[in-house]
Amino acid sequence: MTTPAWETLLVLDGSSRRPRHEQLASAIRAAIRSGRIPTGSALPPSRHLANDLGCSRWVVTQAYAQLIAEGYLEARTGSATRVRWAAAPTRHSRVTPPRQQAAPRIDLAPGLPDLRHFPRRRWAEAVRSVLSTLPHAELGYPPLEGHPRLRETLAAYLRRSRAADVSAHDVWVTTRVTDGVARACRALRSAGVAAIALEDPGWPTVRNAAAAAGLRTVTIPVDEDGLCVSDLARFPEVRAVVVTPAHQFPTGRVLTPDRRAALLAWAREVDGVILEDDYDAEFRYDRSPVATLQGMDPGRVMLLGSLSKTLSPALGIGWLVVPASWTSRIRAASATTPIPPVLDQLAFAHLVETGGYDRHLRAARHRYRARRDALLRALAAALPACEVSGVAAGLHLLLHLPAGTDPIQVAAHARDLGVKVDPLASYQVRVSDSPVLVLGYGNLADTAVEEAVALLARAVHAAGTSR
Amino acid sequence: MTTPAWETLLVLDGSSRRPRHEQLASAIRAAIRSGRIPTGSALPPSRHLANDLGCSRWVVTQAYAQLIAEGYLEARTGSATRVRWAAAPTRHSRVTPPRQQAAPRIDLAPGLPDLRHFPRRRWAEAVRSVLSTLPHAELGYPPLEGHPRLRETLAAYLRRSRAADVSAHDVWVTTRVTDGVARACRALRSAGVAAIALEDPGWPTVRNAAAAAGLRTVTIPVDEDGLCVSDLARFPEVRAVVVTPAHQFPTGRVLTPDRRAALLAWAREVDGVILEDDYDAEFRYDRSPVATLQGMDPGRVMLLGSLSKTLSPALGIGWLVVPASWTSRIRAASATTPIPPVLDQLAFAHLVETGGYDRHLRAARHRYRARRDALLRALAAALPACEVSGVAAGLHLLLHLPAGTDPIQVAAHARDLGVKVDPLASYQVRVSDSPVLVLGYGNLADTAVEEAVALLARAVHAAGTSR
Repeated sequence: MTTPAWETLLVLDGSSRRPRHEQLASAIRAAIRSGRIPTGSALPPSRHLANDLGCSRWVVTQAYAQLIAEGYLEARTGSATRVRWAAAPTRHSRVTPPRQQAAPRIDLAPGLPDLRHFPRRRWAEAVRSVLSTLPHAELGYPPLEGHPRLRETLAAYLRRSRAADVSAHDVWVTTRVTDGVARACRALRSAGVAAIALEDPGWPTVRNAAAAAGLRTVTIPVDEDGLCVSDLARFPEVRAVVVTPAHQFPTGRVLTPDRRAALLAWAREVDGVILEDDYDAEFRYDRSPVATLQGMDPGRVMLLGSLSKTLSPALGIGWLVVPASWTSRIRAASATTPIPPVLDQLAFAHLVETGGYDRHLRAARHRYRARRDALLRALAAALPACEVSGVAAGLHLLLHLPAGTDPIQVAAHARDLGVKVDPLASYQVRVSDSPVLVLGYGNLADTAVEEAVALLARAVHAAGTSR
Repeated sequence: MTTPAWETLLVLDGSSRRPRHEQLASAIRAAIRSGRIPTGSALPPSRHLANDLGCSRWVVTQAYAQLIAEGYLEARTGSATRVRWAAAPTRHSRVTPPRQQAAPRIDLAPGLPDLRHFPRRRWAEAVRSVLSTLPHAELGYPPLEGHPRLRETLAAYLRRSRAADVSAHDVWVTTRVTDGVARACRALRSAGVAAIALEDPGWPTVRNAAAAAGLRTVTIPVDEDGLCVSDLARFPEVRAVVVTPAHQFPTGRVLTPDRRAALLAWAREVDGVILEDDYDAEFRYDRSPVATLQGMDPGRVMLLGSLSKTLSPALGIGWLVVPASWTSRIRAASATTPIPPVLDQLAFAHLVETGGYDRHLRAARHRYRARRDALLRALAAALPACEVSGVAAGLHLLLHLPAGTDPIQVAAHARDLGVKVDPLASYQVRVSDSPVLVLGYGNLADTAVEEAVALLARAVHAAGTSR
């Protein structure tokens, strides 16, 4: 083979701050990898290469030694240093970046709070404050259950604002509600529970988490009074249920007192467990939100919540309140699950303790209420034939389209107009006949309400005429 | 039953900022739960109670309505409002808080970096900076793979400092190395791989993660040249291996060039996968750390790393570099796994981009090197008969005790003296005869080095004389 022109192959950057021997090792490595110096090639003696490159011989011997240690080169006594490494016969194919779908101009998908009003300055201040006082040791591996200070703070918050019956030792810090559901389902499975009941319609992510934990899922319909509790009797093998009693997602119904009593009675009878997803309970506009089921039977109810709908899902902080009899199983089920970083846990505790979280919730409640009212007015004006359902709460409502309209077509037309909106069917296992859309207004800009409704009305009419 | 003295049972706090009807509902709820108002009891008519409590009748009717909605009370036409809710027959037993073991005064367990030198101000500044520029939409649900900006930053960092062959699309953001191992093992299992080989001695958490993912684990011994690669041939069903080539944990050996070549050849031959745990590769004191195996065969090596040993395990940020052919399986294996909060991902990206991370690593390298030297000097003086092994790198070394010493006894004596130290056996599957301790000095205060060694020497002598 011909001798490569080493000084052009291996260029050292005089302006770089990296040591020259590292630069040289890096350049030779790159040349070997790219095939510019093939396997078996002899490298020049260190003295010659040093001469060619205008560096000291030490630089070259260091670089060679480094690459010998890594297996790119090999040295045999009395012979030249040679390229040892052979490129993999199957070339490493690059991942093609997935084509990004353009974000919709207006997003009415449910599940997001108002990201424009995340308390950025308060959060940064909370992190700064935590970092200025945190003992060094707390930067080590965090406790599996969560930081004791956040557990105390959450317990006090849930007692005060959700009438939960909870002490700090019952609280496990999670990353989100589905994380809590996944842990609870793994714990249930380890206790021999094989199947779990879920609301239909409901969150598909909750269903997926239960299934991933190895439980069989059965679905129970939801009507105007919430979960049809009496249907649970049809599944004698089911001893666990996930329910959103304060504000059912996505129907927006509240579990009635009779159904609450029936559900608690069912749990006692079958010696079962209720997973209470306290979904957007913080946002009730017409009255105080109903208190948790957990407070009525803390030995049988696991309470789940998160900051995803009150602050931001990007924080990844949630909680799971666990009855004492389930603590050791939840511990086992949590052993390999990541928990939120300590700094974030403590930043949130700081936000609650300083009253910042309550202030944020109060302001958010007013904002969402006003937005919901504006949305209702706009819908009544633009789509007078469409009924709206769901109590005055939360971050979404249901829009009932005229009979015979295809909600999937409406969603497609809306998409073309730059509006993302989900048909109710996206959240149903047994798809109903009635054409309904789920309208999330949590992250809808107030200034976009009118436009969103106008575009939605166009989409409804387009779907109507294309029938 | 006698009529309770309602005005003493239900005290409203005039100084509270909570609305009075919420205070009253809360007080009645508490009285019912505690059994002070038994099931079936009639509550006084709203007018009477309002009179007794000195509040408006509206306050009482609101509170009653609230508790009726929650199922604590029930109202029947023409009859008094009564307590409906019956306390659970099995009382909710409280969790007894686990007894905290007193933290050791000096902790020589391996695995922690120097928590005293976490760059607190830089981190707080990074969070503040990220929060001041982050687009609102990025406070929504984070992408499964990690934030694109951090993936770019990590790819550039790994190319530059670890000679990895990686683009941003190959990088998955994880919470720690065991999280990456767990995902990789789930992906392997979905591809039909049933067993994985692990280093012995090694990290038990890695073994646990592999087992939790459903893989059978076999262990391969480690000698002075690192993993005994030829032993892999004894397990023809094994097509995957976890290895720490840059600085083996806990032996402190570096995988030799011959072994590196043999390992890559093995992977090609069996069409297998190497999980390269790039454990504490940032800290080599005598020369540049060896480059990654991943850079030599990016189609067969998954590269794992984290900030747990460089900044703090409390951050919960790590990475997994994935060959293109494994991307879809890793995606499926990551679907239900929590990822680090977006703000933390971006704060770390900011730290790297502004040079803060490199500065931190440089300073840490000097600090650890000096501490290791001081530790070696102190050990040579106090325990001259004990050999030390492991290359000049990382955050731990091995201390070989005099033949016949029981390292478990030494650890017990040390514990009594306030020093936590692990016998090598804690990290071994096949426990060896030679008495060895693992000494972690990452989080050892410089001022405590002499004292730590003096106490350790006392423990060694105590164990020697008690034989």
